[in-house]
Amino acid sequence: MSGPPIITFLTDFGWAGGYVAVCEAVVARVAPAARVFHISHEVPVGDIAAGALTLQRIAPSFPPAVHLALVDPGVGTNRRPVVLRTSRGDVLVGPDNGLLLPAADALGGLDASWCLDVALVRARAGLPADEVSFTFHGRDVFAPAAALVAAAADPASLGSPVDPAGLIRLTPPTATLTDEGAVAQVIEVDRFGNVGLALRFADLAPQQGCFLVEVVGEDLPEWTARVVRTYGELGSGELGVFRDSWGQVALALKSASAAQLLSLDCGMKVRLTAVPDTGASSGPA
Amino acid sequence: MSGPPIITFLTDFGWAGGYVAVCEAVVARVAPAARVFHISHEVPVGDIAAGALTLQRIAPSFPPAVHLALVDPGVGTNRRPVVLRTSRGDVLVGPDNGLLLPAADALGGLDASWCLDVALVRARAGLPADEVSFTFHGRDVFAPAAALVAAAADPASLGSPVDPAGLIRLTPPTATLTDEGAVAQVIEVDRFGNVGLALRFADLAPQQGCFLVEVVGEDLPEWTARVVRTYGELGSGELGVFRDSWGQVALALKSASAAQLLSLDCGMKVRLTAVPDTGASSGPA
Amino acid sequence: MSGPPIITFLTDFGWAGGYVAVCEAVVARVAPAARVFHISHEVPVGDIAAGALTLQRIAPSFPPAVHLALVDPGVGTNRRPVVLRTSRGDVLVGPDNGLLLPAADALGGLDASWCLDVALVRARAGLPADEVSFTFHGRDVFAPAAALVAAAADPASLGSPVDPAGLIRLTPPTATLTDEGAVAQVIEVDRFGNVGLALRFADLAPQQGCFLVEVVGEDLPEWTARVVRTYGELGSGELGVFRDSWGQVALALKSASAAQLLSLDCGMKVRLTAVPDTGASSGPA
Repeated sequence: MSGPPIITFLTDFGWAGGYVAVCEAVVARVAPAARVFHISHEVPVGDIAAGALTLQRIAPSFPPAVHLALVDPGVGTNRRPVVLRTSRGDVLVGPDNGLLLPAADALGGLDASWCLDVALVRARAGLPADEVSFTFHGRDVFAPAAALVAAAADPASLGSPVDPAGLIRLTPPTATLTDEGAVAQVIEVDRFGNVGLALRFADLAPQQGCFLVEVVGEDLPEWTARVVRTYGELGSGELGVFRDSWGQVALALKSASAAQLLSLDCGMKVRLTAVPDTGASSGPA
Repeated sequence: MSGPPIITFLTDFGWAGGYVAVCEAVVARVAPAARVFHISHEVPVGDIAAGALTLQRIAPSFPPAVHLALVDPGVGTNRRPVVLRTSRGDVLVGPDNGLLLPAADALGGLDASWCLDVALVRARAGLPADEVSFTFHGRDVFAPAAALVAAAADPASLGSPVDPAGLIRLTPPTATLTDEGAVAQVIEVDRFGNVGLALRFADLAPQQGCFLVEVVGEDLPEWTARVVRTYGELGSGELGVFRDSWGQVALALKSASAAQLLSLDCGMKVRLTAVPDTGASSGPA
Repeated sequence: MSGPPIITFLTDFGWAGGYVAVCEAVVARVAPAARVFHISHEVPVGDIAAGALTLQRIAPSFPPAVHLALVDPGVGTNRRPVVLRTSRGDVLVGPDNGLLLPAADALGGLDASWCLDVALVRARAGLPADEVSFTFHGRDVFAPAAALVAAAADPASLGSPVDPAGLIRLTPPTATLTDEGAVAQVIEVDRFGNVGLALRFADLAPQQGCFLVEVVGEDLPEWTARVVRTYGELGSGELGVFRDSWGQVALALKSASAAQLLSLDCGMKVRLTAVPDTGASSGPA
């Protein structure tokens, strides 16, 4: 890495209680030259899959960096604190609970991995050995470790190698292509009410026309959605299917929430079935 | 500009999904020396007028800077991506939808304007030409352009001149002075529940006494509000009229929400009518 | 202080309206070399005690710094704007309303204190004397003062000494130890729904076993809570008592909100009574 070292930071802490700031304070002490970039601290509480998705999407846009990621409902138990190095030269620091691996894949793949030795990290960071809480390893273990790596410590000097095959991997969200379309899980509902699916847009054909949209396993109305390129092509109240900015299939309404219209939330499944484009605006089918 | 270049950043993205961070990542690549200041990422979704107001108020407090502003419901349509230069030496980057012009006025007025050439911006920023999404020009076009300007690129080298007279300008909120007071539109409801009006305090006379406050076109109770200088002069439950920190008329309650009391939201109109100061605490008139 | 000066920043402003950013803009002008760290801008509106608690907890983790803290419902009244210096070398800037003193205690204790001279601060910062609002001293007085100190101004040059004994001090939250446990006030409900009490964990014995949890003065069901070290030791729906990361007693549920379960909010009181560990999962007693 050239220039000041970069630490990206993602958590489910929220900003309110100062939990983010106290981790930054640790970094300011241990790696004063590092620049911290906040990816998000609003990951839904304890939602490892949501945090993993955001980290996987955003981390590759940064120059090689230390990525500190903390969605850690198992803090203080025997889940392992790990450091992963990717072939692109990034380092990921966080709990071994599935949060980090998708990002490691997106950063060129895993090159090596270590389990942090808490006592070693504390000593190297100049922190008292006996002040490790059971509930806030972000401040007490992970931020010091990330700062040490940003300050040029070799990850191998902070713990013991672990077998990458033994790292915990989340079950990926499901998507099944069918003759007429696909069934895919909702992986994101954003601030605009757009609904992101676990489905590459390139896998969904035809790229023009319409789809019938049905929420699987729920007694809800079906909607017709038109394939568009962007929100502005939609009429008021018209549902659109488009390639989102990550190359995935997403559903949107113009200036309103598609998630609310369809009563959709993360983890639910949607069936998309190609239908002729009638030219009519969408509505319950 | 002396010192590291400054980029201010305002959007309606929210922090949750990493959309802000991915734009910062682009800046970190293209203009690693630039400092990014976050004005707000909580502009109400798609509310161009609210974003324009905040940008107009805050941008002039910074030293001359690149102001990257993105409230862009028309992303991916034929609305133009523009760069504006002000006579103070600031540069504004964003969509041509009215978001930028009020700030340009507040920054000394428009000096020159260009329509961004997307292919040119991508090439100059070292980004692949064919990876421009239809829904996230913040990441794909505007952040690269802002970073290039922060890294000393001449805005003229990133696109073609456009006629300032052709830039889209929002209809300004309305205020009418009357013999006994004014009728003015609500332009802001802040976190404290204070209600900001589209009315210069200096235009409202008398600056002491009381006003009857009436929500135009709604069947709601009227309230008496006393002219005060600050919240602490109000009694509990007493409504105040004051000069806010931007020199505008605002309504406030002490330790409670005036917006909630009056059922007011942005865009609604309020009639203020001067009445004798009875010395009584306020309440439905 | 070595390295670039650090300013920490805590307010109840929220990020939405640009109020935080305009203070940072002032700092960027007056102390361009300073680094600003955001502790929190989501202190509940006007909640001085909540702000004081967060500042007291987080400030000591930073290297010696200027701590700018603004929860200031009395802005524009005769409450004093103050600067405090601590024996650790930190400087606190904010209103004299109780917000700063707990942090000063945590930073080694008060060394000296001054009341800011607004005209002097404005002049030293190169700001017009007559543009001081009555409602936004963060921008107009406190941020300039903090920036001046960060840029090496002697606090004594910005105002007149004040007697530390005359500074306003909040009534501390109450906790009473009893033979079987304690009665303690709720001082925090965090994003995870954990309930923090005004009680050192070390003062609560036994550190194993169970406690009956009763909300004082409310007709609510009692719950049994088990002493655990961390969330992961709890069964689903089981209430835990633990030492939080600040060394205080806290109540938590695994993957759910203890505050919601117990209908608890800040300021309410909880009685904890030691009971034999029945090994049964918790529930209304």
